[in-house]
Amino acid sequence: MDLNADLGEGFGVWHLGDDDAMLDIVTSANVACGFHAGDPARLVHTCRAAAERGVRIGAQVSYRDLAGFGRRFIDAEPEELRAEVIYQIGALSAIAHSVGATVSYVKPHGALYNSIVTHREQAAAVAAAVHAVDPGLPVLGLAGSAFFAAAAELGLRTVPEAFADRAYRADGQLVSRRLPNAVLDDPARIADRVASMVQRGQVTAVDGSTIPITVESVCVHGDSPDAVRIAQAVRDRLSEDGTALAAFTD
Amino acid sequence: MDLNADLGEGFGVWHLGDDDAMLDIVTSANVACGFHAGDPARLVHTCRAAAERGVRIGAQVSYRDLAGFGRRFIDAEPEELRAEVIYQIGALSAIAHSVGATVSYVKPHGALYNSIVTHREQAAAVAAAVHAVDPGLPVLGLAGSAFFAAAAELGLRTVPEAFADRAYRADGQLVSRRLPNAVLDDPARIADRVASMVQRGQVTAVDGSTIPITVESVCVHGDSPDAVRIAQAVRDRLSEDGTALAAFTD
Amino acid sequence: MDLNADLGEGFGVWHLGDDDAMLDIVTSANVACGFHAGDPARLVHTCRAAAERGVRIGAQVSYRDLAGFGRRFIDAEPEELRAEVIYQIGALSAIAHSVGATVSYVKPHGALYNSIVTHREQAAAVAAAVHAVDPGLPVLGLAGSAFFAAAAELGLRTVPEAFADRAYRADGQLVSRRLPNAVLDDPARIADRVASMVQRGQVTAVDGSTIPITVESVCVHGDSPDAVRIAQAVRDRLSEDGTALAAFTD
Amino acid sequence: MDLNADLGEGFGVWHLGDDDAMLDIVTSANVACGFHAGDPARLVHTCRAAAERGVRIGAQVSYRDLAGFGRRFIDAEPEELRAEVIYQIGALSAIAHSVGATVSYVKPHGALYNSIVTHREQAAAVAAAVHAVDPGLPVLGLAGSAFFAAAAELGLRTVPEAFADRAYRADGQLVSRRLPNAVLDDPARIADRVASMVQRGQVTAVDGSTIPITVESVCVHGDSPDAVRIAQAVRDRLSEDGTALAAFTD
Repeated sequence: MDLNADLGEGFGVWHLGDDDAMLDIVTSANVACGFHAGDPARLVHTCRAAAERGVRIGAQVSYRDLAGFGRRFIDAEPEELRAEVIYQIGALSAIAHSVGATVSYVKPHGALYNSIVTHREQAAAVAAAVHAVDPGLPVLGLAGSAFFAAAAELGLRTVPEAFADRAYRADGQLVSRRLPNAVLDDPARIADRVASMVQRGQVTAVDGSTIPITVESVCVHGDSPDAVRIAQAVRDRLSEDGTALAAFTD
Repeated sequence: MDLNADLGEGFGVWHLGDDDAMLDIVTSANVACGFHAGDPARLVHTCRAAAERGVRIGAQVSYRDLAGFGRRFIDAEPEELRAEVIYQIGALSAIAHSVGATVSYVKPHGALYNSIVTHREQAAAVAAAVHAVDPGLPVLGLAGSAFFAAAAELGLRTVPEAFADRAYRADGQLVSRRLPNAVLDDPARIADRVASMVQRGQVTAVDGSTIPITVESVCVHGDSPDAVRIAQAVRDRLSEDGTALAAFTD
Repeated sequence: MDLNADLGEGFGVWHLGDDDAMLDIVTSANVACGFHAGDPARLVHTCRAAAERGVRIGAQVSYRDLAGFGRRFIDAEPEELRAEVIYQIGALSAIAHSVGATVSYVKPHGALYNSIVTHREQAAAVAAAVHAVDPGLPVLGLAGSAFFAAAAELGLRTVPEAFADRAYRADGQLVSRRLPNAVLDDPARIADRVASMVQRGQVTAVDGSTIPITVESVCVHGDSPDAVRIAQAVRDRLSEDGTALAAFTD
Repeated sequence: MDLNADLGEGFGVWHLGDDDAMLDIVTSANVACGFHAGDPARLVHTCRAAAERGVRIGAQVSYRDLAGFGRRFIDAEPEELRAEVIYQIGALSAIAHSVGATVSYVKPHGALYNSIVTHREQAAAVAAAVHAVDPGLPVLGLAGSAFFAAAAELGLRTVPEAFADRAYRADGQLVSRRLPNAVLDDPARIADRVASMVQRGQVTAVDGSTIPITVESVCVHGDSPDAVRIAQAVRDRLSEDGTALAAFTD
């Protein structure tokens, strides 16, 4: 099983999360590409730290929105979105290359991640961008999304993930961050949920129902106050249960 | 002889120059990389238009300064500048790749171009960035500059250029754009100057003296009102004189 | 009758439209505030040029989106949008004050203009922002919009405008710029439409039907290729018909 | 004696320092204006929190440089810098007004602060901007600077400050942040230095010499790890010594 987290999400003088600690836990690092976070010097540092630990690097592409941290839907034209995603993957690829690493996959960030669950034109644009850069790049995202449909149509490998600390609706989608209880914070409970997801393919939704979930990677957040503690709890629990941890790209 | 021009220098709704017309004249296109100009969708268009005409694409890297169009010196730390240049080259490379082309060289833009004539730390940072991306990438710039010294030290090919429409000081440097008469505007006179540069390796400085100049490429500007007319006059004059035009990377 | 146009919409080296020519025609200038366009130095110039001609200055507030020129819906939180609008009005007010002028009204730009026709939360946020700056500031916008409802509730004066060169749907809303025929370009036809709007309160929609329209100001665009010619045609036609031109804030 | 600190210096999702805690200690808050930090929603919060505590609000104006947090010299033209400073003061003034407060003074930030110690053209531009907004606004800065000379020439009140935690050179200027030992971190030692500055008008420079210093306000930093503890130590020490704390604008 793969553990992924969002990293490199500071900007200039501003920090977010403890990248170095998270890189000791995860197997795949979704590294920001400068559009929602991630100045180039920080990205060099994050890619180097990932490479040193054998953690895989993914391009965490976003709407162009530093002020909103990529968390706000932007009604971008497919053509401009496609070009923006190509631009971001290329930028991070060169950074990764400069430290002897490579970009191994692509994961959309924040509002873009959410919008292309259903927004077909933007989903197709992101998939086309990945394909234009390298048809061999897998995409990490939500099973059943418009994005995965578009990616599959182009022959891209789609890697479904589950969220360790996010509440799910009965329809399998995430509860909006704007709602209360959207984010879980108890490490033990989160570790239990992940164990259930990984070993039984099940998770309990906010309405109490048990829903099926397909998981090739588990996303642990790096920006919450207890991020490192939660991620460590998840990793420890999976290890105790005998689940081998390895990047999905290995 | 190579003719190069700065292209892709609009941003979003804003246009600058007539890229398509210039691409019919030049042999090398210095394409903006998003830091002083150049939104990704425009860069896709410019790279495609260049590729269709067999015009070579160079990464025109800059300080991060949309508001100042990269024309203002920024006292950036070498480490951040190095990372920013890698980021920009990578971004444009992916864009170029998406239209079946490649980035064949790197040319610094505006204030960065000027500052690394003498600023050793920043010059070394830019050279190191190019080298980190690809040691085979030539750099286009000013003969005798700190940038060329740093690039040569790393084994990069340095390609000296002359400016068709800029006034030169007796010491071989450009007259600052902030001074009057920094930019020439008469097509015939500009064509004469270029012919002198290319065929005799000489140009007349602002003080009337004749100075030697080493030229492997001639830069024609794409953003002045008469840019296309001037560039065409230069091209026509060189053709009449029997100078074959070809990209320096060919 | 008032004629308004969007001005100050360049950024840095990039120009858009012929502000000085438009200022000789209109009675109210919707001046950009830096979020979709308008660097401060340009805004000083535009405000000074408006003040010299006795043209009234309005704050043309926008989503924060230079790359998209404010033409893309952004799902901004009401609280952040309210603060952003206050920020923009204040910034332009100080600029106007520095040339002896004042901001006399507020007009939302682009996608924000369109979204708050129906988006109640964002409409309320913009209205609250105007009210927080100065309850005496009128707002210029679309009759029947959620924005006007929210503004009226706070006691703000609402000034309904019509668009000289935009096609209308039968329900009185504008045809999206993404559709063909959204923008008219024949000066004579546009002048006829405006005359009908102003004198009979009627306009012909895209489906051929005649719809009523309430007009206290007519918006002429400043960024289309023939902007000046169209605006002049509108002004001339109204003058010929005996309609006195004066700012709605006079 | 006045205590001032830089506040409101986060951006979007990114935080910097503990504004609420600092506002319980200082008497004047230098609030960011959006150019080096400070999104509008945060500025509303910071201004409200300051107003609730009776802390005076100053506009902390900067070069336009989010990526560099305003810490990098930018070779801006005086005319554009003047307009940018007017823009920033106006923006923050409207924010302050929206919470029932006002901007009571102006303090340049970071690299701008440093450059206008000696850069006459930029110093004159900043002073002219403050004067254009309100000739009654005091400026907070360094005694003996070109900025103070330019401000005094325009009749602005100049308020000299000392830095609690920054090392001084023998010539009275600050040791560059790029050098080691530029920033002190021991609360007790810092409190001693401030007591010496305030009561005897003296400070010990890095070369061991004692230099005179004129102080109407003491700057305590809000962005260092121990900022709150240091600021509290300074405040406590001054109180113990019987120095009354009050904003210089009171």
